[in-house]
Amino acid sequence: MPSEPKHDATRFLPVIENEAATGRFILVCEHASNMVPARWGDLGLSAEQRTAHIAWDPGALGLARGLAQRLDAVLIHAPVSRLVYDCNRAPDMVGAMPARSEVHDIPGNAVISPQERLARTEAVYLPWAEGLHGLIARRIALGLQPVIVTIHSFTPVYFGKQRHVEFGIIHDADASLAVAIHTVAGKLTKLNAQLNAPYSAADDVTHTLRVQATPYGLPNAMLEIRNDLIATPEAENAMADQLAPVLNMGLVEIQKQAKAS
Amino acid sequence: MPSEPKHDATRFLPVIENEAATGRFILVCEHASNMVPARWGDLGLSAEQRTAHIAWDPGALGLARGLAQRLDAVLIHAPVSRLVYDCNRAPDMVGAMPARSEVHDIPGNAVISPQERLARTEAVYLPWAEGLHGLIARRIALGLQPVIVTIHSFTPVYFGKQRHVEFGIIHDADASLAVAIHTVAGKLTKLNAQLNAPYSAADDVTHTLRVQATPYGLPNAMLEIRNDLIATPEAENAMADQLAPVLNMGLVEIQKQAKAS
Repeated sequence: MPSEPKHDATRFLPVIENEAATGRFILVCEHASNMVPARWGDLGLSAEQRTAHIAWDPGALGLARGLAQRLDAVLIHAPVSRLVYDCNRAPDMVGAMPARSEVHDIPGNAVISPQERLARTEAVYLPWAEGLHGLIARRIALGLQPVIVTIHSFTPVYFGKQRHVEFGIIHDADASLAVAIHTVAGKLTKLNAQLNAPYSAADDVTHTLRVQATPYGLPNAMLEIRNDLIATPEAENAMADQLAPVLNMGLVEIQKQAKAS
Repeated sequence: MPSEPKHDATRFLPVIENEAATGRFILVCEHASNMVPARWGDLGLSAEQRTAHIAWDPGALGLARGLAQRLDAVLIHAPVSRLVYDCNRAPDMVGAMPARSEVHDIPGNAVISPQERLARTEAVYLPWAEGLHGLIARRIALGLQPVIVTIHSFTPVYFGKQRHVEFGIIHDADASLAVAIHTVAGKLTKLNAQLNAPYSAADDVTHTLRVQATPYGLPNAMLEIRNDLIATPEAENAMADQLAPVLNMGLVEIQKQAKAS
């Protein structure tokens, strides 16, 4: 029955950076880290697999940090690999502790008992969800009108197929910010920017937006950057230079719409 | 800026009862208590006002306990008066720390600074939200398929007007469980049962459902019982006897619908 975990009760707390920021954006990086705590060994994976995109979103944290600095935004990121628990998934979703990711079997996730599902939920998902919710609720209380933007990266080749999209903007129930960012990206950048690519809400990838932003009526969007475009610190910085004005002007756009309506 | 409160860091944790229950229902009582912690004095109210319906939902906790027992359900309830913080409201809603409730001014809430709003959010709302979310997420992880039902009571006379509804069933985005409960109540009881009365989601009374149930796709409903019908322990028990089969058969109804679709 639901109770405190009996064995290792370690809770992997999210990391909050730039907490004194006063800008409206809260930047969120669920897949910032490929760290697998000792408790889960190597999940049966090779060192190469544990640094591949299946374990995390390479470049996403560096880009998010660059954006946080440029936008005076707070940043929150998860400290554990999504192969242990994917913080952008609910505890009953297959993808929360995936037995397979793209073309890779994850042996350590092949059979997960309800008790192990509970243990990972308590160790990784709950501290994450509480940390993000607390950050959002405190800023709502202070009247800071938060805007939630999650930062992800995707692999240029998926199931052997080349992806041409460079910058994906994904929305859930409230499309306004995503549409505004997409429009502004077309004006301010030469990136191949697409709405709801390479995934969409129908693929169950918008859990964070659904749980943390929509219920409070906060503007929100999920950003996906092709990871070959943010493969070095210099490239991350260059992408942050490009995208910071896109996010800021996207926010101005929905503020104008809100005033007009 | 958002950070730990500097003064009294007491967090008022929700109370969880019957945690070993294995039934699907999670019963939720946001307005179970009229307790005002010493930190907030008497909020400028008389003793009579502090025991009136503006401070809590009289009878709701007793009814919820009776239902929890009959349904093998877990119960969670808030330990602090809604006049300090109404856990069924977001931190930026006027009703979260109301300056006026029905015909009563709340002097202690007349002027609330952003820092005080933050302090109450941290002391009451965040522990509540985290406690309820943890309860739900743990049960989702265990495959228990939770169903969220919030239990409230309402005053028979409001702004001098008599209310004839006895049992209100209120829904947010997902109406299925509320509609099923309303239908079953018409068959199994003689209560004057009405959908979306005496309030509805349009009055911003469905915060808990929106934040805690809808994002996880959990069936949910908010129940309102007229408080003159649950004014004694005997009456609470009699109402629990009436409503337990109504909730159970309502759940069966939506399970049948889910199978058919």
